[in-house]
Amino acid sequence: MEDLKKRIEQLEEELKAEKSKNETSSVARPKISQMSSEVVDSNPYSRLMALKRMGIVENYEKIRDYTVAVVGVGGVGSVTAEMLTRCGIGKLILFDYDKVELANMNRLFFQPHQSGLSKVEAAANTLSFINPDVQFETHNYNITTMDNFQHFMGRIKEGSLTNGPVDLVLSCVDNFEARMAINAACNEINQIWFESGVSENAVSGHIQFLIPGKTACFACAPPLVVASNIDEKTLKKDGVCAASLPTTMAIVAGFLVQNTLKYLLKFGQVSYYLGYNAMQDFFPTMMMKPNDGCDDYYCRLRQKEQRESLILNPVEETVSEEIAAVVHEDNEWGISLVDESEPVVEGAHSEIAPGIHAAYDLPVAEEVVEGSSDSADANISLEELMAQMKSM
Amino acid sequence: MEDLKKRIEQLEEELKAEKSKNETSSVARPKISQMSSEVVDSNPYSRLMALKRMGIVENYEKIRDYTVAVVGVGGVGSVTAEMLTRCGIGKLILFDYDKVELANMNRLFFQPHQSGLSKVEAAANTLSFINPDVQFETHNYNITTMDNFQHFMGRIKEGSLTNGPVDLVLSCVDNFEARMAINAACNEINQIWFESGVSENAVSGHIQFLIPGKTACFACAPPLVVASNIDEKTLKKDGVCAASLPTTMAIVAGFLVQNTLKYLLKFGQVSYYLGYNAMQDFFPTMMMKPNDGCDDYYCRLRQKEQRESLILNPVEETVSEEIAAVVHEDNEWGISLVDESEPVVEGAHSEIAPGIHAAYDLPVAEEVVEGSSDSADANISLEELMAQMKSM
Repeated sequence: MEDLKKRIEQLEEELKAEKSKNETSSVARPKISQMSSEVVDSNPYSRLMALKRMGIVENYEKIRDYTVAVVGVGGVGSVTAEMLTRCGIGKLILFDYDKVELANMNRLFFQPHQSGLSKVEAAANTLSFINPDVQFETHNYNITTMDNFQHFMGRIKEGSLTNGPVDLVLSCVDNFEARMAINAACNEINQIWFESGVSENAVSGHIQFLIPGKTACFACAPPLVVASNIDEKTLKKDGVCAASLPTTMAIVAGFLVQNTLKYLLKFGQVSYYLGYNAMQDFFPTMMMKPNDGCDDYYCRLRQKEQRESLILNPVEETVSEEIAAVVHEDNEWGISLVDESEPVVEGAHSEIAPGIHAAYDLPVAEEVVEGSSDSADANISLEELMAQMKSM
Repeated sequence: MEDLKKRIEQLEEELKAEKSKNETSSVARPKISQMSSEVVDSNPYSRLMALKRMGIVENYEKIRDYTVAVVGVGGVGSVTAEMLTRCGIGKLILFDYDKVELANMNRLFFQPHQSGLSKVEAAANTLSFINPDVQFETHNYNITTMDNFQHFMGRIKEGSLTNGPVDLVLSCVDNFEARMAINAACNEINQIWFESGVSENAVSGHIQFLIPGKTACFACAPPLVVASNIDEKTLKKDGVCAASLPTTMAIVAGFLVQNTLKYLLKFGQVSYYLGYNAMQDFFPTMMMKPNDGCDDYYCRLRQKEQRESLILNPVEETVSEEIAAVVHEDNEWGISLVDESEPVVEGAHSEIAPGIHAAYDLPVAEEVVEGSSDSADANISLEELMAQMKSM
């Protein structure tokens, strides 16, 4: 009898110790209903709200109203999601079909004990612990299958905090098919988005800003690759595992989220294309106009709408004026606006900026089936597109 | 009796559940004795070893022989340490006197439950869990006090895996006094290092590579600030809390570690100065020669040694030749080497690259007390330097 009682006391003690261990590792901070500028150690937003006092951002709190979709939660996407979470974004929608593996440990964010978990689940767990004020919605599927694509497009259209379209889509995927799917969805629902990518040799990357009808879409021109003096043949070998570095991935994620913040919170100038070449620390920029012969029906439709809107409202002449909401007047060191200094690439066949080349040559343009691709029937066009993608 | 037995069973069950929770959150991977190129999901080094197959790095495994000291484990330093850890660096020595606070949560790496822990301790715990192959040495003190400075210098001199000098010092501190202390130590022991910094308005940053006697030291010229069109007066107001962003911090850490990898593993070109202006996505680069009237005695001594070495060994003409071990011959897009294209700033009074200006004007040069500062007595010179720093 006494022994049993002692055993119970002992077990209760051990249980308490184990529970306290678990609490230490899982105690999150309480939610914060309103962002404060107060300069105290316990305020996780003090250094962000300071952007207002510094004259950089007019209304930082506005970030809580925004919803961003992150497609692909790998080396770039996970860090992208973490940055937005720590910045206090309103809502994040994460898409990825992959699982965490030890082979991912050479990039930031995921930790060894998460191996085997789905990337979206593991990310949402860690991120909601880091900042419980952010809302998370996760989708553990491949967006390129027909059903998932429809669902994906639905969430982009209705996933925001107010059940409207998200404020921005960030593509952090690692393959052509997924990029084409995001491109198709964003053209169809007229959704502004950013593309990002890192080369297979790990030493270059880029981000690209896409406004349907105003800038080149992903199908207007072959994806652009920052030249890295690497033999292309090396990259094409079958079965070769791509290299990756936490540095390049975090720099690309940093560029992506910095430009996301500039766009959402209206400060500085959003870059249309920003490349990074790690070998020489070289950063090409440019702007690409859409290709009026683009294969994507909705891209051509958005271009037409854009031309019509320019006729009705001729003041809105350049894209950059619309985006660069806050342009400082005294530009003491002569950095000029995008459309004055950067190369503008029209369509796919014009000259591209130094240091950048197309990933592949455009195939000879196929005849467009007028009936279907000029019609406004979304299903037919989509199926066509999916069929084209499958055949690549 | 039966009740007690039931209670024991119940407690044992609960204890098992709690223990398994703790295990899930603390199971690290086993150590790996040799880096493998094998392409399997369970190999944390496969994507790094792929840099060899891709022709970027000749001998990636060499990274395990290197020791890097990271001074300052805040927004830039913590991410820097994480990147090096995930890359599989041999040993990291971390210096910081600060504690983790919720106010740090707007930057990457630290998590809310670490609030109150010392930054070096919290960092080493997380990092050794992420990669148990890395050796960590931590120092929870302020390097600028006299005693700590001596100890700091001793660890730089003897802290490597073979008890010799570390391979590189990375300055990730956030104040002038600490930078001057690192500068003094590195000049005295002839230690190559990188400086890094982020502006108080959070939208610009830089890294700088310093080779005693060959490049300008931190005391040769006022620290350089990337112009950001911000009223300087805004920054100088007393009691104003500096702004910070996870994006800018991670980009600067990315540049710092990428150039560290290029230097240690001998690929690409190491940048002498790489600036980042987030408002316009502008990246100034340049190279600064040392100031032969520098206030730092050891800087002048290293310059003298350098001149003598050039007389004995005139082949070694430019710094860039020594650093850029792998320079690709066919440079298809015309990016030229540092000393051909980038502005070289001589001393403190020459013209600086566009977009960069000095953080303050150099004071009128004080008379140098010949007896002490030209003597080789380290103690006197150091004390003088510390006294000068205190009076700033």
